[in-house]
Amino acid sequence: MLDLDGTLVDSVYQHVVAWQEALEEIGVSLPAWRVHRRIGMSGAAFVDDLTREAGVVVDEVVLRRLSSAHADALSRQSASVGVLPGAEPLLAELSRIGLPWAVTTNGTLRLACPALELLGVPDAVLVCGDEVRRAPRAPRTLDLVLVAAARLHVLPASCVVVGDSVWDLLAARRAGAGAIGVLSGGYGREELERAGASRVFDDANDLLAHLGEVGIRSPG
Amino acid sequence: MLDLDGTLVDSVYQHVVAWQEALEEIGVSLPAWRVHRRIGMSGAAFVDDLTREAGVVVDEVVLRRLSSAHADALSRQSASVGVLPGAEPLLAELSRIGLPWAVTTNGTLRLACPALELLGVPDAVLVCGDEVRRAPRAPRTLDLVLVAAARLHVLPASCVVVGDSVWDLLAARRAGAGAIGVLSGGYGREELERAGASRVFDDANDLLAHLGEVGIRSPG
Repeated sequence: MLDLDGTLVDSVYQHVVAWQEALEEIGVSLPAWRVHRRIGMSGAAFVDDLTREAGVVVDEVVLRRLSSAHADALSRQSASVGVLPGAEPLLAELSRIGLPWAVTTNGTLRLACPALELLGVPDAVLVCGDEVRRAPRAPRTLDLVLVAAARLHVLPASCVVVGDSVWDLLAARRAGAGAIGVLSGGYGREELERAGASRVFDDANDLLAHLGEVGIRSPG
Repeated sequence: MLDLDGTLVDSVYQHVVAWQEALEEIGVSLPAWRVHRRIGMSGAAFVDDLTREAGVVVDEVVLRRLSSAHADALSRQSASVGVLPGAEPLLAELSRIGLPWAVTTNGTLRLACPALELLGVPDAVLVCGDEVRRAPRAPRTLDLVLVAAARLHVLPASCVVVGDSVWDLLAARRAGAGAIGVLSGGYGREELERAGASRVFDDANDLLAHLGEVGIRSPG
């Protein structure tokens, strides 16, 4: 299963700036790097964590306002969001060898659908943050892995998670799945290795060139 | 001496998006993370490197157009650029203990002046990328360290460079200066350590709390 933002589409930096703008609207001022390092946590856990750090309590009403402000800020920047190198051929190769795959994202269905269109896979199996239950104090990605595995009719332990954030990799490890990191979301290599990535590639293109080495092969 | 973008002001992510926009204008498409990891190189070396990676040759005319497009794109986002936590008190403390300090940036004077205003130090010693000679194939930061040391009437070896990018730290090492990293520009801790940082702090605020430990003290 593959993460969306920062792994397949080049949207992390736009997300950072959009979250900063949205947080400013509710009076929370946080440096960009602290927002960046939390992209990939679940939407709710992400907001909990950021606002706790800023010492602000956010109720459901403010949370909805924040989420809406983020979506608006992001849509203003959507023109500059492109597909990451190798994303489309990687997905095509997984399909060609008959390996079931899914796209997972902690973002909303509203934001994920245009990204799948951009990738040319509008009918891909997609698991979004807003369709899995909230796990307080845990990155919601944990649930995404389990839900995606169930949707693909495979055991979590037989899955490989490909992600650009430490949250993707921690969630993979908790679910007992394999974990592969990519640098295309802007994290450093060692951060991803420490979070449990068995290998770290530059991007989807680099991973595609080394699929055999990481045990991603035809299930037949 | 202290780097500006990502060390004192929270502008790296805006720079990334602005460079992406500017590069798109000359037909160069590069993922955000690759732009990010080059922020802090000199403007010219930065463009050389990015366009070489994209396989494009850039002449002086295109270079000027690119630089102008970047400045325009950045100015559209300047409202969201803020001071990083601890930047102002850190500079105030350096002045209080009588330690000569300078702000260095590989950016232009045009972009640096508003940032110094934002920091409340419009009269600080400032060394910009556009006032030091071009060093082909080398990050221009090397020259910035030497120029800044000369301007402060101190030996490079007695200086400490505080920066958020590997380029700041590599330049410090080449000049024989001390090197301290901060995470506020979005690099990972280990990347900065490998580039030569003797210590890495979260941000200026974290550095300020540990000034004594890193040998930054009154010269008296």
